[in-house]
Amino acid sequence: MEKLLMTPGPTNVPERVLNKMNEKMIHHRTSEYSNLFREFNERLKFVFQTSNNVLTFPSAGTGALEASIANCFSTGDRILAVSIGDFGDRFIQIAKIYGLTVDEIKVPWGKAVSLEEIKNNLKDYHKGLIITHNETSTGAVNPIKEIGEYLKDKNILYIVDAVSSLGGIDIRMDEWNIDVIVTASQKALMSPPGLSFVGVSKKAFEYCKVSNIPKFYFDFLNANKFLEKADPQNPYTPAVSLISAANEALAMIEEEGLNNVFLRHKILADKFREEIKGMGLNIFTDENALSNTITAISFENANDIKNRLEKEYNIIVAGGQGAAKGKMIRVGHMGCINEEMIYRTMNAIREII
Amino acid sequence: MEKLLMTPGPTNVPERVLNKMNEKMIHHRTSEYSNLFREFNERLKFVFQTSNNVLTFPSAGTGALEASIANCFSTGDRILAVSIGDFGDRFIQIAKIYGLTVDEIKVPWGKAVSLEEIKNNLKDYHKGLIITHNETSTGAVNPIKEIGEYLKDKNILYIVDAVSSLGGIDIRMDEWNIDVIVTASQKALMSPPGLSFVGVSKKAFEYCKVSNIPKFYFDFLNANKFLEKADPQNPYTPAVSLISAANEALAMIEEEGLNNVFLRHKILADKFREEIKGMGLNIFTDENALSNTITAISFENANDIKNRLEKEYNIIVAGGQGAAKGKMIRVGHMGCINEEMIYRTMNAIREII
Repeated sequence: MEKLLMTPGPTNVPERVLNKMNEKMIHHRTSEYSNLFREFNERLKFVFQTSNNVLTFPSAGTGALEASIANCFSTGDRILAVSIGDFGDRFIQIAKIYGLTVDEIKVPWGKAVSLEEIKNNLKDYHKGLIITHNETSTGAVNPIKEIGEYLKDKNILYIVDAVSSLGGIDIRMDEWNIDVIVTASQKALMSPPGLSFVGVSKKAFEYCKVSNIPKFYFDFLNANKFLEKADPQNPYTPAVSLISAANEALAMIEEEGLNNVFLRHKILADKFREEIKGMGLNIFTDENALSNTITAISFENANDIKNRLEKEYNIIVAGGQGAAKGKMIRVGHMGCINEEMIYRTMNAIREII
Repeated sequence: MEKLLMTPGPTNVPERVLNKMNEKMIHHRTSEYSNLFREFNERLKFVFQTSNNVLTFPSAGTGALEASIANCFSTGDRILAVSIGDFGDRFIQIAKIYGLTVDEIKVPWGKAVSLEEIKNNLKDYHKGLIITHNETSTGAVNPIKEIGEYLKDKNILYIVDAVSSLGGIDIRMDEWNIDVIVTASQKALMSPPGLSFVGVSKKAFEYCKVSNIPKFYFDFLNANKFLEKADPQNPYTPAVSLISAANEALAMIEEEGLNNVFLRHKILADKFREEIKGMGLNIFTDENALSNTITAISFENANDIKNRLEKEYNIIVAGGQGAAKGKMIRVGHMGCINEEMIYRTMNAIREII
């Protein structure tokens, strides 16, 4: 049995994408690269559903999340932050490291924040709101759309961590008034890990101009300056082979159609959870906050289930994080995912229990 | 004619290395990955000629240079910095952005710094010395060894940018008392771009512990903590395919033998320059500071030469940077480089002039 990655990233990479990486190396300061990068940027904008520029960095998603804080804010700025799990906590930790004053809305694990809680906690003095779209540690999704609509015309920067959702769940940067969205290559975008992507609104660039936090490699304004050249470029050597691979993955998403991709994720997620519940197992996540890219299943003996899936079935899933360590398995179903993979995973779990 | 990259990075990637990248994706939180990463780290230590740990980040070399400042120093620290070209200037710029007080030794382009200049300028109050080993913008090499021997037992952190030399020119981290060395995957290490590597001494980690500069993604102490686990790991998703590729490239260097690799670089560099001089052309660089990985050739019509090499001969070289724009071509001869490539380049230049 072939190895199957049912993890919340890195996810399975289609052969068509993998094959792009062993093409002969090209140099980045050439028109050949600029043409590739131009096409890539147009495709990123398509998946981000935005007319804003989307910046690309060689880095993990965490690097770009940190960059969104270091670029958009100044030491002492006060922001509102929502955490519904481990990755929300990490985002808050980063903001604090950079000297921001962070007012926190902490939601119990497994649940999403409500628009009401945002309304009750958001004050005029908040310069930004940072929030996770899809909380990878709990499988819960925040109501990004409703919050964005509420924030329209408010004097606040809306920053969304969409690392484990963008490309798998509908997220409309422009329509939902999002100022900064961060994602990475190895999740729903079904590319190898090593690239992060940041959609940045014109409003966010204005915030960048007055930020007093030191930065260099992740400087948004500088990256944008290079991107806007007639022959688009990067300030520092880009990860050419990863960009070439991710460009192919985005082409596949374009060919399938964005809405079809979202629908496929939804159908497979629903199918998977229906079967899991049918086995008498407990989904950890509140049923009003279920993610289409990841499912967290509660188990007393989670480590055992995880190990047996790997050893006996060659299926890799993730364990629990933080307080949920040993108490859940997290099954990723995003990116290059189809019915057969879902069935293989369901059947393996059924046989084990 | 096949495309030939005679650039100072990205350089030609051997097929054996490229082929590693289209292997099926693996998940990083598995023993399969830890085993790969363990082997990779041992190989890095071999090429760095060190018993210290070498940290790996998904990023360009510039990110790791910035990280060496942000991790090892605090705002207000006073350091000595040597610049012999564009990349030296950039390193100084980064240090200043982070609020360091930088005393600069600026050497005219094309020359190396002398040990005498270091001795005359280094003071007790300097907390660190930052210096470029191989200045990619001019093709000059600084006397890293002599400086390191002079610094032995001095209370100062010795930080070397070896982005375009490590793996092509002998550089001995431990023997030469270097505390931090930075390099990247796409130069002499003949791998695809997207990874940076930082050798960090025990002394440097002590400096990291007291640094007051905010950082998260590039946190050396945290990366080292994960590296030192029984099953070595990374704090954030590593660029698995790039690591797999670079691991193969390091295996090739091991097989050839480190000294043989350095000798090959030296023989080819000497041969190339001898022929270039034989054509009556001028090497830009001082003949006492010549690099074995890159040659800068002065031309009145450099852009024309560069364009013709690309269009008529499918050979990619780099142009001049900064004040040298349009006045030189820079030919990289590092990493996956052999006699045939050198001859093809020489012959093309001969035909053009």
